[in-house]
Amino acid sequence: MTDPNTTIEQLKRQVKEFVTQRNWEQFHTPKSLAMAIAVEAAELMEHFLWCENQAKEVFEKKREQIEDEIADITILLINFCSQNNIDLSRAIECKMKKNAVKYPVGKCFGRTTKYTEL
Amino acid sequence: MTDPNTTIEQLKRQVKEFVTQRNWEQFHTPKSLAMAIAVEAAELMEHFLWCENQAKEVFEKKREQIEDEIADITILLINFCSQNNIDLSRAIECKMKKNAVKYPVGKCFGRTTKYTEL
Amino acid sequence: MTDPNTTIEQLKRQVKEFVTQRNWEQFHTPKSLAMAIAVEAAELMEHFLWCENQAKEVFEKKREQIEDEIADITILLINFCSQNNIDLSRAIECKMKKNAVKYPVGKCFGRTTKYTEL
Amino acid sequence: MTDPNTTIEQLKRQVKEFVTQRNWEQFHTPKSLAMAIAVEAAELMEHFLWCENQAKEVFEKKREQIEDEIADITILLINFCSQNNIDLSRAIECKMKKNAVKYPVGKCFGRTTKYTEL
Repeated sequence: MTDPNTTIEQLKRQVKEFVTQRNWEQFHTPKSLAMAIAVEAAELMEHFLWCENQAKEVFEKKREQIEDEIADITILLINFCSQNNIDLSRAIECKMKKNAVKYPVGKCFGRTTKYTEL
Repeated sequence: MTDPNTTIEQLKRQVKEFVTQRNWEQFHTPKSLAMAIAVEAAELMEHFLWCENQAKEVFEKKREQIEDEIADITILLINFCSQNNIDLSRAIECKMKKNAVKYPVGKCFGRTTKYTEL
Repeated sequence: MTDPNTTIEQLKRQVKEFVTQRNWEQFHTPKSLAMAIAVEAAELMEHFLWCENQAKEVFEKKREQIEDEIADITILLINFCSQNNIDLSRAIECKMKKNAVKYPVGKCFGRTTKYTEL
Repeated sequence: MTDPNTTIEQLKRQVKEFVTQRNWEQFHTPKSLAMAIAVEAAELMEHFLWCENQAKEVFEKKREQIEDEIADITILLINFCSQNNIDLSRAIECKMKKNAVKYPVGKCFGRTTKYTEL
């Protein structure tokens, strides 16, 4: 599986199989999955806790662990979508349109100001 | 775009275009993106803060907002992968193999015990 | 030290001494401490990830670990206040007055509705 | 109320009164309070999301909001302790002793290495 030839649907199927085999659907309420996503996101962030903003070398030294954290968060997100009938690609397309309105190129080129303060 | 016909690579391209148009790559260090993912994950979780574990109706009432949060987290994850040469599909495949070893079906069928306590 | 006879100032002194002995003030920027607080908060939450809302027994089984997490978050908060000249007691008093306005007893008695939706 | 003359017990009483007046104890399970702490911690962190590590001016511009976030997290922690019979001062004293063993001055002077990697 590589990004150019893997669809979200294929990832959904793989995650679903893993969960079903373990009889875990019963635990995967939206609330519990949202909590699990937040826990994993904090684990990813912990790798960068005391380092400089630009520190590329930190990244390379821990690449495997970081890729594992990224994967764990994504697996949970995909699981969340499967359990709750969310088409992730459509949700992303839809949100990116909203983001484009919130952050018009002319106003936010090269700036990180939050849309509420633009 | 729908899940059966959207590849991760296509999502990467869309996110990259959005970021490049705004000249935002300069801000998207691993550290900052990891922080942003954690912030968005907390926003998703907040929707479920005071509700019962099973509360399906909470989900349906806020479906659009929740789908937006899910999309935002995924957009950041995809952006993180683009910026750091991570093949997300490969990372997921690789992590799911590790998870299968950590959580063998026989030991964790119908149980949520953490692998360190199995 | 027990709660009836320990002031915030005394806790501040203890934390400051620990940090100064290790020459750590240089790392304790507001940004880094805020990240550390979020990381520790996620660790606290992880203890309750898959359990029922009411589960008192989970708490008792892990009381020592949970007390340690609570202490770690508080130590970081106190450190944040010391480094940035925040009088924590005054900040709490001030915020509780705002909260009392946001959540008037008459409107939110026995309800968890967010103030923005009251 | 100021730090030199405010005990943790006094803060506990104030928070308890606020919660009792609103009949909110029923919602304040350990799980829900832990989630609320994580949500507030992410809000604090969001203020520092795109800024430089050292950025003191960000802090001063948003001092009031940041003090409010710090207060909110502490109020929740104190509430957590009240609800679960935790003496916070004792827990902090106890955890600082453990931290002193994990991070001996000689090994971690001027370094941010995690104790697991010292």
